[in-house]
Amino acid sequence: MIGKYKALFKKEMGYDFPQEPKAQLLEAVKAVFRSWDNPRAIYYRRVNDIPSNWGTAVNIQSMVFGNMGEKSGTGVAFTRNPSTGEKKLYGEYLMNAQGEDVVAGVRTPNPISDLQKQDKKLYEQFVNIANTLEKHYKDMQDMEFTIENGKLYMLQTRNGKRTAKAALKIAVDLVNEKMLSEKEALMKLDPKQLDALLHPQFDNAALKKAKVIGKGLPASPGAGCGAVAFTAERAEEMVKEGIKKVILVRLETSPEDIEGMAVSQGILTARGGMTSHAAVVARGMGTACVAGVGELVVDEAKKVFTLGGKTYKEGDYISIDGSTGNIYGEEVKTVPASLSGDFATVMAWADKYKALEVRTNADTPADAKTAYNFGAQGIGLCRTEHMFFDADRIPAVREMIVSTTVEERKKALKKLLPMQKKDFIGLYKEMKGYPVTIRFLDPPLHEFLPHEDAEIKALAAEMGIPFKRLKETVANLKEVNPMMGHRGLRLAITYPEIAEMQTQAVIEAALTVKKKYGYDIKPEIMIPLTCDSREFNFVRDVVANKADEIIAKEGVKLQYKIGTMIEIPRAALTADEIAKTAEFFSFGTNDLTQMTYGFSRDDAGKFLDYYYERKIFESDPFARLDQNGVGKLVEMAAKLGKSVRPDIKLGICGEHGGDPSSVDFCHRAGLTYVSCSPYRVPIARLAAAQANIKNPRK
Amino acid sequence: MIGKYKALFKKEMGYDFPQEPKAQLLEAVKAVFRSWDNPRAIYYRRVNDIPSNWGTAVNIQSMVFGNMGEKSGTGVAFTRNPSTGEKKLYGEYLMNAQGEDVVAGVRTPNPISDLQKQDKKLYEQFVNIANTLEKHYKDMQDMEFTIENGKLYMLQTRNGKRTAKAALKIAVDLVNEKMLSEKEALMKLDPKQLDALLHPQFDNAALKKAKVIGKGLPASPGAGCGAVAFTAERAEEMVKEGIKKVILVRLETSPEDIEGMAVSQGILTARGGMTSHAAVVARGMGTACVAGVGELVVDEAKKVFTLGGKTYKEGDYISIDGSTGNIYGEEVKTVPASLSGDFATVMAWADKYKALEVRTNADTPADAKTAYNFGAQGIGLCRTEHMFFDADRIPAVREMIVSTTVEERKKALKKLLPMQKKDFIGLYKEMKGYPVTIRFLDPPLHEFLPHEDAEIKALAAEMGIPFKRLKETVANLKEVNPMMGHRGLRLAITYPEIAEMQTQAVIEAALTVKKKYGYDIKPEIMIPLTCDSREFNFVRDVVANKADEIIAKEGVKLQYKIGTMIEIPRAALTADEIAKTAEFFSFGTNDLTQMTYGFSRDDAGKFLDYYYERKIFESDPFARLDQNGVGKLVEMAAKLGKSVRPDIKLGICGEHGGDPSSVDFCHRAGLTYVSCSPYRVPIARLAAAQANIKNPRK
Repeated sequence: MIGKYKALFKKEMGYDFPQEPKAQLLEAVKAVFRSWDNPRAIYYRRVNDIPSNWGTAVNIQSMVFGNMGEKSGTGVAFTRNPSTGEKKLYGEYLMNAQGEDVVAGVRTPNPISDLQKQDKKLYEQFVNIANTLEKHYKDMQDMEFTIENGKLYMLQTRNGKRTAKAALKIAVDLVNEKMLSEKEALMKLDPKQLDALLHPQFDNAALKKAKVIGKGLPASPGAGCGAVAFTAERAEEMVKEGIKKVILVRLETSPEDIEGMAVSQGILTARGGMTSHAAVVARGMGTACVAGVGELVVDEAKKVFTLGGKTYKEGDYISIDGSTGNIYGEEVKTVPASLSGDFATVMAWADKYKALEVRTNADTPADAKTAYNFGAQGIGLCRTEHMFFDADRIPAVREMIVSTTVEERKKALKKLLPMQKKDFIGLYKEMKGYPVTIRFLDPPLHEFLPHEDAEIKALAAEMGIPFKRLKETVANLKEVNPMMGHRGLRLAITYPEIAEMQTQAVIEAALTVKKKYGYDIKPEIMIPLTCDSREFNFVRDVVANKADEIIAKEGVKLQYKIGTMIEIPRAALTADEIAKTAEFFSFGTNDLTQMTYGFSRDDAGKFLDYYYERKIFESDPFARLDQNGVGKLVEMAAKLGKSVRPDIKLGICGEHGGDPSSVDFCHRAGLTYVSCSPYRVPIARLAAAQANIKNPRK
Repeated sequence: MIGKYKALFKKEMGYDFPQEPKAQLLEAVKAVFRSWDNPRAIYYRRVNDIPSNWGTAVNIQSMVFGNMGEKSGTGVAFTRNPSTGEKKLYGEYLMNAQGEDVVAGVRTPNPISDLQKQDKKLYEQFVNIANTLEKHYKDMQDMEFTIENGKLYMLQTRNGKRTAKAALKIAVDLVNEKMLSEKEALMKLDPKQLDALLHPQFDNAALKKAKVIGKGLPASPGAGCGAVAFTAERAEEMVKEGIKKVILVRLETSPEDIEGMAVSQGILTARGGMTSHAAVVARGMGTACVAGVGELVVDEAKKVFTLGGKTYKEGDYISIDGSTGNIYGEEVKTVPASLSGDFATVMAWADKYKALEVRTNADTPADAKTAYNFGAQGIGLCRTEHMFFDADRIPAVREMIVSTTVEERKKALKKLLPMQKKDFIGLYKEMKGYPVTIRFLDPPLHEFLPHEDAEIKALAAEMGIPFKRLKETVANLKEVNPMMGHRGLRLAITYPEIAEMQTQAVIEAALTVKKKYGYDIKPEIMIPLTCDSREFNFVRDVVANKADEIIAKEGVKLQYKIGTMIEIPRAALTADEIAKTAEFFSFGTNDLTQMTYGFSRDDAGKFLDYYYERKIFESDPFARLDQNGVGKLVEMAAKLGKSVRPDIKLGICGEHGGDPSSVDFCHRAGLTYVSCSPYRVPIARLAAAQANIKNPRK
């Protein structure tokens, strides 16, 4: 039989094995390769933007044993604290054990410092190796080691996973220690990870009042609060059912749980240490985690757990503090995050090295304020329709919709004018002089009306018009494909008076803020859904005439810009024509992705799962900008736009504005700014810095 | 006051008038310029592809008078008969009259030949001038003249409007008379006009049996049959209401009637001669017209007319024969047109000079036969779903849709297989070996199910499944934007077994036809709605595996191609990727136009009228291919496709395939073929010839 498995290796793996391997080895190696395509791996790659064609490698090395008695052992260690970033060797080990015993969390291991007492020389040797490795890789290392009969073997080292908080501290420390330049430090950070720091933290007052029902290891910091779920599947279901916040409670987690963990606000486990599966994954995800709670008695079958003498069932609200390990049997109030300390330092570096401006999508003064505090340099998208849905306004909107004459419509619009004006004043104030881009009415009008007969009857009565007439209006507004129907600037073409009212509100608000608060606002009026230059020019003229008329009447100086969304493929294809009169473009990559793929965002979910399963798509084009198709249109439009208007402002205001890989694309495509939701502003700032460090702009 | 109007002309028209003009002249000139933008002019330009930026000119010349007594007169004449093409001077005149008296049709004028008796010398002078003009312009001339006190003045000459029949005869005659080359003759024809000859003519037997109730001037040939309408507006309404065929009956027509005339099958007037408004316009439109029916008593107010002692009211069916002038008080049977005589000659020239192949869109053997007789060189689009709607098949389709397992679905598909196979055999036979392109299932599945509870109940009972289950299926299939939903190859990705069944039908049918009839069919399997190369490859592999399996089993040689529609912008943008595996592209310009504009074909009508009114759009992008936007994508895809597959077959199968200006574009874009509805095949053949004469292909 000599050489059989060696031959098999050669045949099946094309690998020339030095000596005859063990029988099981080939199967083991194959299993590793297979694992690259299991559903969890595919999901993980999608979440972390890892192309599936990279593939995986198998490293075959001879085995050392940590379970050969009391002079043997094994452990895991980090050169710095992965949860706080503190510069101090950090880890755990178990004597007479193998690696899985430590990770699985069945036996609770000892802190690495204890090794000093056990074997001073060996400990010092380990510390030296750790320092050497960190200096070499210029990053915090996550190391696995085994001691075989008193001899130390390093099994593996890699840059360690860490919490966002730790990542920032380590980055700042490494710069202070002169190990990294600011640019190098910025490149080592994962923008997506910042998310963890941007979300609410516990309110200290509320936290003091709340009763601690138990304590575990502070495995991953953050404020987790939500309804209890006992299985990953159930956690996913509950979120789908609309329960926004869920805490996953398990004896211990395993790789099968990854999707359920991703949707949870926090993870609570009875078993496992700081390096258990739950702890490592939670830190990577920036999700709060409290692990190894000895007193926690979980009955996953009955769907109850008891702690602190009380029993909690599925759906009960609890809170966990991943920084202290405290567990609370109630919902604890949270407060918004703020940028300070290391975070502020890193953000200052980012602004120093980025070329892209970062703006925000905000429709309310509250959003605008949050974004301003997170460093937004203006509003890239204010969706005015959101102001139309308010309970106190929708009557006037509906009155406008059912109007049968221009006069009636103008009368209804007149009622909306002061409200819109007030909205804009609020936004201008919060942005303290930064540019504010206001998109005119976009959605199809039927969205403002009820569709069930009962509601229509009620509304008709309330409006004092015949049911039949309102019913007719609703029927006439019904469309087969509303996404491609009568919306966007198409509304302004049939009802120019709507655009006139909005123009009046935008301009008068700017004049007011200028007078009252001295902010010199340059409003940017954005026309949605343009597909043709003559179409845009028609609306542009309506807006410009109204604006100039008001400014002239007031006799004040006020600059404003009129531009358009580029969200229809034809607008990108004819961008040179449009740029002759449009002063700026903002890429609406949500709609642009819909039209370019022919995917309705509301319906694609049904079949896209098959696309992931069959590995046709690796990522959701609505979350990560498709650079081969949609991106081609963006590049084309940017080029065509600049060809006729070299100083044209180019922005993006789709969901993609806050996605790091998309921000990198926008940088390369030569855009002026990205605009994203307030909580993504710091992420975009870091991503923009990384983009410009990779491909510096001239 | 001297010089006042001269000055005004200079000021308002920038025109240096030689002498002081009459007071009213300036207003008159302005009125002419204004007329360029009246709604009828805008409509006329849209119908005839005339850009509105051309503008119009005003020719000011001194007046001569035909109403200065019996030695004066005026008339209109053609160098050849505009309705038959016969080479014989043809026209009418009135003594002591002005032009409007002739055109308005208030006085019935004398044939031009009478002028000979009246003034031989003058008549001969006129004949010489007519011949000189025809030789100069190498085309039949339409001339206006006035005689002032015995002196002949030519007021105007232009290429004369003519019937399609006349156009063909004149073209062939001019070539025989060596006045024109074949190419020149082809260029003088208007492809759209051929339409008139492609539609049914009266069945001779039926015509003999039918009772003639009156007779008028054969003003525009063709078989007109339909329900009586007394106003142009009403004619339009009736067509909108679903009455397909309408005959417009008027005292006399005027420019306001143009839209109503365009939707009518025929026009019948009591007044007016061969050159009256009704006659001229009807000939231009290729619509049957009988004019100047003296005995016709029309009461437009009461909406009745009497003729031949009988009274007819709105909605009654009558028939008119524009070639004989006969009127029938009943519906007369019609028969399909055939290509013969001059038509055949001209089509032979067209095929000689065209570079594009012309195929047809056909789903039934009957359509395929018609198209084959009109010279189609294959089927460019067979919509298989049309075969699914048949009453005897839809049960199996529905069974397939409600299936909850692959097995159930395959069982239902098995029932459809023989039917599909039979369909394809029928098409292959009619195309006698020409290529046949078969598009796989395209529409969203909900189109095959009822949506009202009552119908769902009935169907559930019929299918022997619970109402609740069927209701659920219907609900699950409901989509917000079905046009961008679960359709096209997205169905083949979720249900590959559908593509497998269709593949089996296509291949087995081809094998049968090869054995039985000896036609060597090369089926072209077309995958709809592709947006990504990996997506296409998944379905392509399903199809190829099935096809090869069957061919191998049969042990016969059979070639087939697998290609894709290019109807999603992203497919055009990534065409190089797709062409690596796709053997042909067919541009689905209906959907491509929808996605590129973001216009839902079902909904855009509502707002597009505003676009025409406001002169934002000059033509309907669904009727005339938008060359600046959609066309850019077509050119891009053609270029990218050829870059990786130089011999790739490129076709178009949208509505545009039969539109002359779009055919010209397809020629320039380097397409291999256009595919259009059977009745447009000859139009496309002529348009293709003209395109290649204008821009010869190397």
